[in-house]
Amino acid sequence: MATTARSRDLLCRLRRTGQQESGMTASVGEEVMLARAYLTRVAEPPALALHAFVDVVGPVEAADRVRRGEVPEAVLHETEARREFDLAGADLAAAEKMGGRLVVPEDPDWPAWQLLCLAPPTDRGLRGSGQPLGLWVRGTAEVANLFDRAVSVVGARTATPYGEYVATELGHQLIQAGMTVVSGAAYGIDAAAHRGAIVGGGPTVAVLACGIDIAYPAPHGSLIDRIAAAGLIVSEYAPGVTPARHRFLVRNRLIAALSSATVVVEAGDRSGARNTATTAAALGKVVMAVPGPITSKMSVGCHDLLRTGGAVVAGSIAEIIEAAGPVGANLDPAPERPKRDTDGLGDQALRVHDALNLGKHKYPEQVAVDSGIPLDRVRTLLIELEITGHAERGDEGWRKLKGGARHV
Amino acid sequence: MATTARSRDLLCRLRRTGQQESGMTASVGEEVMLARAYLTRVAEPPALALHAFVDVVGPVEAADRVRRGEVPEAVLHETEARREFDLAGADLAAAEKMGGRLVVPEDPDWPAWQLLCLAPPTDRGLRGSGQPLGLWVRGTAEVANLFDRAVSVVGARTATPYGEYVATELGHQLIQAGMTVVSGAAYGIDAAAHRGAIVGGGPTVAVLACGIDIAYPAPHGSLIDRIAAAGLIVSEYAPGVTPARHRFLVRNRLIAALSSATVVVEAGDRSGARNTATTAAALGKVVMAVPGPITSKMSVGCHDLLRTGGAVVAGSIAEIIEAAGPVGANLDPAPERPKRDTDGLGDQALRVHDALNLGKHKYPEQVAVDSGIPLDRVRTLLIELEITGHAERGDEGWRKLKGGARHV
Repeated sequence: MATTARSRDLLCRLRRTGQQESGMTASVGEEVMLARAYLTRVAEPPALALHAFVDVVGPVEAADRVRRGEVPEAVLHETEARREFDLAGADLAAAEKMGGRLVVPEDPDWPAWQLLCLAPPTDRGLRGSGQPLGLWVRGTAEVANLFDRAVSVVGARTATPYGEYVATELGHQLIQAGMTVVSGAAYGIDAAAHRGAIVGGGPTVAVLACGIDIAYPAPHGSLIDRIAAAGLIVSEYAPGVTPARHRFLVRNRLIAALSSATVVVEAGDRSGARNTATTAAALGKVVMAVPGPITSKMSVGCHDLLRTGGAVVAGSIAEIIEAAGPVGANLDPAPERPKRDTDGLGDQALRVHDALNLGKHKYPEQVAVDSGIPLDRVRTLLIELEITGHAERGDEGWRKLKGGARHV
Repeated sequence: MATTARSRDLLCRLRRTGQQESGMTASVGEEVMLARAYLTRVAEPPALALHAFVDVVGPVEAADRVRRGEVPEAVLHETEARREFDLAGADLAAAEKMGGRLVVPEDPDWPAWQLLCLAPPTDRGLRGSGQPLGLWVRGTAEVANLFDRAVSVVGARTATPYGEYVATELGHQLIQAGMTVVSGAAYGIDAAAHRGAIVGGGPTVAVLACGIDIAYPAPHGSLIDRIAAAGLIVSEYAPGVTPARHRFLVRNRLIAALSSATVVVEAGDRSGARNTATTAAALGKVVMAVPGPITSKMSVGCHDLLRTGGAVVAGSIAEIIEAAGPVGANLDPAPERPKRDTDGLGDQALRVHDALNLGKHKYPEQVAVDSGIPLDRVRTLLIELEITGHAERGDEGWRKLKGGARHV
């Protein structure tokens, strides 16, 4: 494997930086880093055959043989078009220049168990299953443990104020609950979720469908920088790779995989968020949809997911946090229902109580008529109601009291 | 059975009126009418033992024996308190005075199959199962077939503008679809559904928890009159009976039973509408809940019903009408999804298409690099895209076309 002295030097600096910044051990060799950097650019993700090939021969030999075209037919098919472009050193340098780095499966911080759900063999028929060959990241957050309790918040670009409010609040409260927010970097729900999370102090993660050096959409350049400052920008695409429609679909599987739960806040009839939800469900993740007004086109996708069983109801932010947390970690006590004074009363006692007035007294005979309960029973029940503070006896018969049961 | 000459005379007039108004045959004898009128007042609904007793000995003998107290223990318990109040003639007269009448099971118009779901024996543990002994009604609608395609619309009294909008629109569109609207007469959702139905020309039905001569809540007096003018006021309580809390729960079973589907539009955490929904589900009816903003307390009840499986999602009014109609009667074609030009393209063709520009041309070699697809395959795909109108060849290579598939 031919690497220039400059590349080697760069790599050493990168590794030192990584050590200082994240405290990780320098366990990943430079050859592996350069090989992985090359491989992430050479094949369009997801590259199932190449991934399998790397698993067998290791990244360094794989990169070497890909470069020479001495690989099995399926791998050749995935790598043929770009195998002559060896920009590994330049890519690593470009990433470093913006405070970024390449995280590889050999790194102890690699989110291995989260990404395992993407591993082939797959019969899920998912467009875009398959694990990434490496992840380009930039930002202040450490990758280690970042995705242990992560929730992805996805939804419409053309969100309504309602949707943006919910996404912002959700992003914020997830952070308060000690979780990581994951989303894309699109207009609407994605941006709102990040903004809420940033205000909450992060970490929040944007997974891109292009290189980590590209701001897409362009007006979100400063938002993406703020996300990096409060968390992490993640992409399996090498620096400089531009966004494309199929890359968003492929990217969506990473959003789903890196989170234990995916929440769809608003989605139109045809929406990328629904694709993420479907993918998350296929990966066995918790999928929730936030209901909205049926008068809004932006609710159609969420309600479709609810109707078809593709998602469960996210009736409140507290419910989402509970559903997304590790089993048992966030069990709220059942919400207390409002209580009525008469909650403890039996059916007949309630009827007698209903038949009484708060003001004017009634004789038992009248109460029997009004309630339709036999007189003997009425007399017994009136005494019961008196004991529990629900009724009061006077010279002119009986009257109702309010707030009885509370005093007993 | 002692009836005054005045009562007999009144009953003859009632029957004639009934004949003229509804065209029903005069098949219900006057003794039965007076007996049923007496029975509806003497026992507090639901009176399961009395109902069973009437089934065995018939209404006339049952009324006679109840009056004398010569009935089984369970029936005595249900009737003892009021058995001496024989206001049958006066009740029928009071009803007539306001254009009302008593509909009885012996009447061919009796909604027998709808109410059958309330028949004992029941092990459903429902508070308030059991069929009514008769139904006091007033209004212009005929009872015959009125409930054959009926949908109940229930919800919060403290509804939000969103809920009232949905209920009004739903009431209106149910009428347009040839269905009957059923509800209570409360503030909020009930009133909104009726108003929509009234504007649509009716019929709409208010089932009361008090006599048909009582306006409850009082400010709804004129609304109730308008409901009567555009449909029917229904109650199993004799004229003059005042509303009471347990009567609303008992009334709710009639709303559920008389409709093939119950729709909850908005409901707080503790709501009568949820009771109606639970009852409807226990009776085997279709139950739907309209989602709403999770930022609204008035959505809590609906979302709870959705989460617990107590209701299915009512994502649109069209969905409700389809779910509520007789099987197959209202099947809409599946909603058409918005189409993209590229919908027919395979995965690789889409990647090649994505790699092209609308303006600047690209050579196949560059397309192969950008898309990550081998050059040979790219050449084939470009020709495919040209044939389907998605791409155009020029002197400087290839460029993307929009709207291709539509022209093929």
